[in-house]
Amino acid sequence: MITRTECLRAQRRAAEMIRQAGVRITSQEAAAIEVVDFGLSHLAEEGVQVLTLFATDRVSAKILVTFPGQTEPEHWHPPVGADPGKEETIRVISGALHVYVPGADTFRRGWIPRGKDAFYTCRHELILPPCGQWTFPPGTPHWFQAPEPGAVFYSISTCVRDALDGFADPGVVRLTRIVEDGEEPMGSHLNI
Amino acid sequence: MITRTECLRAQRRAAEMIRQAGVRITSQEAAAIEVVDFGLSHLAEEGVQVLTLFATDRVSAKILVTFPGQTEPEHWHPPVGADPGKEETIRVISGALHVYVPGADTFRRGWIPRGKDAFYTCRHELILPPCGQWTFPPGTPHWFQAPEPGAVFYSISTCVRDALDGFADPGVVRLTRIVEDGEEPMGSHLNI
Repeated sequence: MITRTECLRAQRRAAEMIRQAGVRITSQEAAAIEVVDFGLSHLAEEGVQVLTLFATDRVSAKILVTFPGQTEPEHWHPPVGADPGKEETIRVISGALHVYVPGADTFRRGWIPRGKDAFYTCRHELILPPCGQWTFPPGTPHWFQAPEPGAVFYSISTCVRDALDGFADPGVVRLTRIVEDGEEPMGSHLNI
Repeated sequence: MITRTECLRAQRRAAEMIRQAGVRITSQEAAAIEVVDFGLSHLAEEGVQVLTLFATDRVSAKILVTFPGQTEPEHWHPPVGADPGKEETIRVISGALHVYVPGADTFRRGWIPRGKDAFYTCRHELILPPCGQWTFPPGTPHWFQAPEPGAVFYSISTCVRDALDGFADPGVVRLTRIVEDGEEPMGSHLNI
């Protein structure tokens, strides 16, 4: 859950980072940036900002923004019917991105969000600079993290079905709930 | 056919346009830009420059550069086996792009390369500014053209099989032949 104010602030910050990275986007696109807290209600620690440029039933292109200090929870794209699952290639536009995939434990520069060790199982560390690319085969778990100054990167993939993604953290809800300011339910921050 | 010098000059110019558009590319990527004359041997009039960022058997991302005054011949992406053919979405990064697709004749701002009226059948004109996008369904003929100052745009698609593309102009050969300087066969420019 995030408040309307948090959502708007994150949208503005993400749009600014995208534009500072040299990417032109329209004001309509800036206003359509999706702010995702994965239902965990601590956006600054675990979350991502997503601008979908287009999405068809065969191909999708998004720009993802990870704020400095923010981690996108470990997830994978499972098969759906005859589709083996989403194949995704990322390409860093600006900043630096920590990417974690299955493989030998080379975990050095990243950090695990507090109390979440069990939900970040991939510890093979890739540090992608601008122009760095990586392709995730369908079904492969992965998670992202950005140190200072954050990261802006493309995610280009086959058909997107975010709602069907698998997550290591059972507390994740893919759909972010936005509440009007002053409407936060009591105790809503206790799960941080 | 183009000479090695023409090829290198076009690569350098395309890399400069990509970088001026705000897109970071590596020096290896700049050196891998494909200069395509479609076998027509008049690159300035008909041709395109292509940087493939990645290409898998499911998804591909390219940056295309059209120099000012350059036209990419009318073509389409036919079905291949069970694949209905390449679906392609373009997004303009910088400059302005004329895009021609089937539909009502709205041809106003473009031009047809000399003597090629029969090979440019699509006359429905779209003028895409930066951030402008268009998706070509499989099998749909289309052609591109850039007035001043040229255009830099993304082409994001399903699996690329350029060698199987259909072209309205029977003179087109998708594979560009590069000859060393001084080795041009006699009369090679007569087909301009």
